[in-house]
Amino acid sequence: MSDKTQIPYKIYLAEEEMPAAWYNVRADMKKKPAPLLNPGTLKPCTAEELEHVFCKELVAQELNDKDPYIEIPEEIRNFYKMYRPSPLVRAYCLEKQLDTPAHIYYKFEGNNTSGSHKLNSAIAQAYYAKKQGLKGITTETGAGQWGTALSMACSYFGLDCIVYMVKCSYEQKPFRREVIRTYGAKAIPSPSMETNIGRKMNEEFPGTTGSLGCAISEAVEHATTHEGYRYVLGSVLNQVLLHQSVIGLETQTALKKYGIKADMIIGCAGGGSNLGGLISPFVGEMLRNEAKYQIIAVEPASCPSLTRGVYTYDFCDTGKVCPIQKMYTLGSSFMPSPNHAGGLRYHGMSCIVSELYNQGLIQARAVEQTEVFKAAEQFARIEGILPAPESSHAIKVAIDEALKCKQTGESKNIVFGLTGTGYFDMKAYEAFNDGKMSDYIPTDADIKKSTDAIPKFNVNF
Amino acid sequence: MSDKTQIPYKIYLAEEEMPAAWYNVRADMKKKPAPLLNPGTLKPCTAEELEHVFCKELVAQELNDKDPYIEIPEEIRNFYKMYRPSPLVRAYCLEKQLDTPAHIYYKFEGNNTSGSHKLNSAIAQAYYAKKQGLKGITTETGAGQWGTALSMACSYFGLDCIVYMVKCSYEQKPFRREVIRTYGAKAIPSPSMETNIGRKMNEEFPGTTGSLGCAISEAVEHATTHEGYRYVLGSVLNQVLLHQSVIGLETQTALKKYGIKADMIIGCAGGGSNLGGLISPFVGEMLRNEAKYQIIAVEPASCPSLTRGVYTYDFCDTGKVCPIQKMYTLGSSFMPSPNHAGGLRYHGMSCIVSELYNQGLIQARAVEQTEVFKAAEQFARIEGILPAPESSHAIKVAIDEALKCKQTGESKNIVFGLTGTGYFDMKAYEAFNDGKMSDYIPTDADIKKSTDAIPKFNVNF
Repeated sequence: MSDKTQIPYKIYLAEEEMPAAWYNVRADMKKKPAPLLNPGTLKPCTAEELEHVFCKELVAQELNDKDPYIEIPEEIRNFYKMYRPSPLVRAYCLEKQLDTPAHIYYKFEGNNTSGSHKLNSAIAQAYYAKKQGLKGITTETGAGQWGTALSMACSYFGLDCIVYMVKCSYEQKPFRREVIRTYGAKAIPSPSMETNIGRKMNEEFPGTTGSLGCAISEAVEHATTHEGYRYVLGSVLNQVLLHQSVIGLETQTALKKYGIKADMIIGCAGGGSNLGGLISPFVGEMLRNEAKYQIIAVEPASCPSLTRGVYTYDFCDTGKVCPIQKMYTLGSSFMPSPNHAGGLRYHGMSCIVSELYNQGLIQARAVEQTEVFKAAEQFARIEGILPAPESSHAIKVAIDEALKCKQTGESKNIVFGLTGTGYFDMKAYEAFNDGKMSDYIPTDADIKKSTDAIPKFNVNF
Repeated sequence: MSDKTQIPYKIYLAEEEMPAAWYNVRADMKKKPAPLLNPGTLKPCTAEELEHVFCKELVAQELNDKDPYIEIPEEIRNFYKMYRPSPLVRAYCLEKQLDTPAHIYYKFEGNNTSGSHKLNSAIAQAYYAKKQGLKGITTETGAGQWGTALSMACSYFGLDCIVYMVKCSYEQKPFRREVIRTYGAKAIPSPSMETNIGRKMNEEFPGTTGSLGCAISEAVEHATTHEGYRYVLGSVLNQVLLHQSVIGLETQTALKKYGIKADMIIGCAGGGSNLGGLISPFVGEMLRNEAKYQIIAVEPASCPSLTRGVYTYDFCDTGKVCPIQKMYTLGSSFMPSPNHAGGLRYHGMSCIVSELYNQGLIQARAVEQTEVFKAAEQFARIEGILPAPESSHAIKVAIDEALKCKQTGESKNIVFGLTGTGYFDMKAYEAFNDGKMSDYIPTDADIKKSTDAIPKFNVNF
């Protein structure tokens, strides 16, 4: 069914076409991602160890690399129905403007109050916490997207939600903080006086505006020192990619419904939650030799973990309180330049995405932020949606690829993930609108410095 | 088809089920709304007079009270397809929480970057301006919702877009200003130095932070003194209600598709654009004696034009540069208390809505803002969507009515309009979260003062 007129602007699935199970790509991988290790013993983390920090069922999902499908509980499916299925949109107007023979589709995850795909995993994590009979969960948030999603999920299940929010965001980005508060969650500026590590940071660095690393450490400390609390995380982990597979599964169903075969699948990559979720079912087809796709992970040139990092065991957090993981990493001491406004600032990458990249199943591309914002502006003006800076990394490469098709005359089907909206990112857009945005690419010396600082863990994976 | 399980959470229409024509309720009204008058001659405005200010085809629509259906041009239908049809959502979770036998539905217009229904008319007005070969259009905006929608529409058609933005909003609400700029429109703080009236205001009141009335006057002056420009308005006018009828038409089709008969239709009312658009097709059924509905317009107690205003000819704008219109009005000098954060601050009301109210076809109810924000918070927490303060007026009454059904045991079908999201209204939510929000109801003396100030126009309508 390739006749253009038969494909609507927005392909919506019916509720009964929504996935009933998440897809666990690890089950189909012959060479599995390396396990999380206890940094003390350098042995794979046991379920028991992880259950001090994370909810029991989520630990089981984290460690499960056998079952290809894990049923989505009915309560979660019902919540999904409030904002899913998300549309797969045919970018007719963008295609016309680019004058390309390519067909461009985007899976839009921004039509919910959290403004992004993060809600897909937040609701699952809150559900399992509730099921375990916990009082509440703790997390950290930088700009606030994940914190917002989690506050929504906890409010729905009546769970206490403690969000350690990096102090500079708490003070300078009051909008997301207020969304979090409106959903009844407690937003605490980090470093706080509520934890040992927070008090220590405030004492050692008076007036500090915090860091994500410190906020993680505070959230973990809060969870492990309060009865009935566990810590949750919005990206990087296997469980998160599992929950996010709803994105890819819906995309797959929508494409099949209209007989469309994707040639290329593009997603932005920070910690890997969106990318992993979008591509997993398609990678599964490749692993089972059912299809072939060109898959491109797009990352910022200022934080290029896949394209310039090393593949090794490293700390997941700058505070070094979490298990270590084998991944493409710039080193946990790596910090993107302060002028970086485009998100995706994580020093490492999901171990699933890392291993797929290592096996050559996916490609990676790094793009500079002024080009990303140009693409964002172009997209907003012609497709109506104001994209999040993170999502705009995928837009940039989708446009590049569509223009290549114009050169070659190929009418490829390009699918990309539009992870969210940029309504709370207007300070970054303001810098772009004012011509005050610049690019920064770390030097080889910068990267050598932070990757050399990764401890040489003596492990055999 | 009343079986609960058969109705999905979100009813989406297929593209081919979207309306091909707008519905013009005036055609079915036996007693028509009174015409716009030239304040100088006190005679009905002619098309020629209005065409100095407004686009030609929009003037024709403004004056057309004969044709029940006006075809939606294909270009506009195509743009609609990028963000419409909007879902009619069954509020299952809210119903469960309220433990009500009522069935609650809401038509959600917030899934687009303008964040509200305003885009429905913005794209139509931009289209006709483009078709007329104009260079651009001018408008005013307060908080920026309409300005955002218009900038999106103009960007799509490659039209110049000049938005006079009340200075205090321009400075204190930089986010919407940046959205407007991202769409390539020019946002000018009002009073500006670009118009005679702006210069005069700046001279007479140095340091003034502006008013909507002044911004309207500047936008009209800009349009009438620049070759190839016209002025456009986002509410109140007949043409705007006509375009907004897509809301009601889609709602009607969605209800019919599932065999649902609405008992009650609830909408918030500021200038009347959303309410008029939502209810028009249903009022049409009532006028043609095909059905009966209870229709409730909800307005803020701090700006109660329908419930406490007078029905008379008055100026539409505080600057008194526009034609006069017969409507329920508090007088153009009326200003809601500065502590009013809930939107819907217009002193008057669409003349169509006014006449329907005068004929007893619709009811009106005024609600206080702390109650509105309580309802907003409750709705956000259980239904996921963070509503605009304006929309939350309708939520408040929908909840009240659902609770009445709990008392009486009636399972009424309650339909309300959820006009938009509150992402750019977090300052108001912050005041509510901090317990710093208060109510203010104007005294009878306040209202007498501003209604007494309405000139006694010697007209016979």
